[in-house]
Amino acid sequence: MARKAEIIAVGTELLLGNITNTNARDLSQALAGLGIGVYWHTVVGDNPERLRDALETASRRADVIITTGGLGPTYDDLTKETVSEFFNKNLIFHPEILENIKQEFERNRHMKMPENNQQQAWLPEDCVIFDNPAGTAPGCAFKQNGIDILMLPGPPFEMRAMLNNYALPYLRKLSDSVILSCDIMTFGMGESAIELLLREDMRSMKNPTLATYAKPSEVRLRATARAENLQQAREMLNPVIESVRAKLGDIIYGVDIENLERACVELLKSKNFTLATAESCTGGRIAERLTAIPGVSAVYKGGVVSYWTEIKRKILNIPEEILNTHGAVSERTARAMARGAREITGADCAVSVTGVAGPDPDERGVPVGIVYVGLATPDGVYCRALRLGKRPRDLIRDLSANHAFDLLRRYLSGISPDLPENA
Amino acid sequence: MARKAEIIAVGTELLLGNITNTNARDLSQALAGLGIGVYWHTVVGDNPERLRDALETASRRADVIITTGGLGPTYDDLTKETVSEFFNKNLIFHPEILENIKQEFERNRHMKMPENNQQQAWLPEDCVIFDNPAGTAPGCAFKQNGIDILMLPGPPFEMRAMLNNYALPYLRKLSDSVILSCDIMTFGMGESAIELLLREDMRSMKNPTLATYAKPSEVRLRATARAENLQQAREMLNPVIESVRAKLGDIIYGVDIENLERACVELLKSKNFTLATAESCTGGRIAERLTAIPGVSAVYKGGVVSYWTEIKRKILNIPEEILNTHGAVSERTARAMARGAREITGADCAVSVTGVAGPDPDERGVPVGIVYVGLATPDGVYCRALRLGKRPRDLIRDLSANHAFDLLRRYLSGISPDLPENA
Repeated sequence: MARKAEIIAVGTELLLGNITNTNARDLSQALAGLGIGVYWHTVVGDNPERLRDALETASRRADVIITTGGLGPTYDDLTKETVSEFFNKNLIFHPEILENIKQEFERNRHMKMPENNQQQAWLPEDCVIFDNPAGTAPGCAFKQNGIDILMLPGPPFEMRAMLNNYALPYLRKLSDSVILSCDIMTFGMGESAIELLLREDMRSMKNPTLATYAKPSEVRLRATARAENLQQAREMLNPVIESVRAKLGDIIYGVDIENLERACVELLKSKNFTLATAESCTGGRIAERLTAIPGVSAVYKGGVVSYWTEIKRKILNIPEEILNTHGAVSERTARAMARGAREITGADCAVSVTGVAGPDPDERGVPVGIVYVGLATPDGVYCRALRLGKRPRDLIRDLSANHAFDLLRRYLSGISPDLPENA
Repeated sequence: MARKAEIIAVGTELLLGNITNTNARDLSQALAGLGIGVYWHTVVGDNPERLRDALETASRRADVIITTGGLGPTYDDLTKETVSEFFNKNLIFHPEILENIKQEFERNRHMKMPENNQQQAWLPEDCVIFDNPAGTAPGCAFKQNGIDILMLPGPPFEMRAMLNNYALPYLRKLSDSVILSCDIMTFGMGESAIELLLREDMRSMKNPTLATYAKPSEVRLRATARAENLQQAREMLNPVIESVRAKLGDIIYGVDIENLERACVELLKSKNFTLATAESCTGGRIAERLTAIPGVSAVYKGGVVSYWTEIKRKILNIPEEILNTHGAVSERTARAMARGAREITGADCAVSVTGVAGPDPDERGVPVGIVYVGLATPDGVYCRALRLGKRPRDLIRDLSANHAFDLLRRYLSGISPDLPENA
């Protein structure tokens, strides 16, 4: 029977807008993957009355209730007492848990356990105890009146650790099916154009389903299959992936890969190529996205952030006449920057970006959104000219970086460097 | 009379965990600033029954109800109909709104308005209409049975634009007090140590209040005053700010300033100094954080990402013997990197970072978390040695960048470059 879950986050700081409810998002994703439908998210403050009220409402409509928050050592941490009382469960003291908490303080925090942490050693009778690998508050689960109740900690790092290590295995047993998704990542075509190509598939497919999620210039296609086990689910997904590949071709840069830069790094590693960067308006964003990937030092040598024109000349050796004649934001300059970075670093490939990120046009009047992306390789120098329009500065920087990665991955994959016509 | 608000987000994608409910956070912050207490966040899917149920619950407990989502043109956008029906309001067709939407499509998207968008021109009778500066769906507000109801769009960019331009002025009239906060930003001392210094103040203060919000190595102190008007609220906050300054001294890097890099840029501008960067393990993060600030080109010339040791030698001109004798991760190398960046760019100051971000130790066995931050200035070269411990890669990169900014701002402010003893 399909379960209906409600997630109740307890915490006044959420209602003050000081923090975002990422726990609800992470839990929802996890439950979706288990085939357990989430129908409600609720947030209440550190107030027993309103929490009781929320539990009342939840018990009427859901048969899986997951709370986050309120398991800490302070006076306003009241989830356990309120939930236990509501479901008529006594709280039992666990001396071994108290011992663990004491150890945690002494060994890792080098201090005596504060008195208040004692309350974390009390748990509802007959519950399954979830250890907290990232903090002191254990969580737990129990069943009452046909409802499965789970209590997890509030700090996202702790919640995720407990979820992955203890709560997910527990929840897996509550579900009679699995849901498996896979993400087909594309770059260079808008969501409307893609939906046009895949309209028939998307409308007719019931299981698996196919849905699009769009970010500027990047569209992720998620295929989702519900089956009795993972093996079956995978077998259902394969033909869908093939069908989408046949229709979308080169704009697909990977399946179940996080982003364009990871695709580039894998391609560079496979070809034993090294990479350098020369950035102007992206100001380090390309280098930063590359170096966020563990192990990237196998392929990425380094680069230059040539923010001032003078630096393009001094460090990247761009000839004076190119800068004077064509300006810092031009195809010639982008090509020269990529060539320059390749030469001074000795890397096999180098990407470059020069453009106007805004909010103002540059000193030559080049408008916001005009960006040139260069790529220097053993086979020559390529360039892509962008007209990104008047958009927020951050967006132009990220989009430009995406285009640089796309130009590079196309070259490394041996496919056309150009975007499709209907991009 | 103190109003009680509930925020209802409508959207199945939230319950699937595909996106995070940032609207609830942004709205809560805004309402807190107006002195309107938010007591509940609720999320339901694109389902009229469950939305009606949520409205039922909300009308019993709240007197301000704000919905987000479900104002779009597709068949599952049902917020307006459901809310209007629930509150016994007829929907009225507004030809001028339809005209605006048609114009938006023709002028900005170069296409004919799809049929479906027609439904966006229907609004509850006698409502206040909120224009949508960032999309096509107008929002609205009306009062019924003593409850103020507002309907805002789901896409966060649209919601924020409508909130700031229309909904906030509307909500301001519902509140009889204002809440003003100010953030005192500190770096270099842990939250426990700060709480120890300010314990008396924080415990005794009722209005204004003083609260701490900690990120790794950064503690933000928020002073919040509730008063009849902004002028009064400001006057209540000033003595608190002075008192905190007196107790915390140099670790304060600014008031109501977003981050350390902005503090650095303002100081550089005030002294007419230019800056360059030389990064190894931070891999472009420092450059990227600087160039995210509009107008930074007045002071930031550019820099080098010397990821490979070879690049430290080739581009930053670091002598072979320093690299061989002390290694890439050393105080000598950090100083040489900063000096090198300053020389090749001609900048007044240059910051450098070399360290081990992880997950593995470097080739010389230097453990994760050992980082050296250098600063070259007209008055000499400074260095800060960090022991960040075995922490996630991203955190080490960001913390290192923070320390680089802190070293720079201390030099520019004419205060000791060293962190306090009890950091």
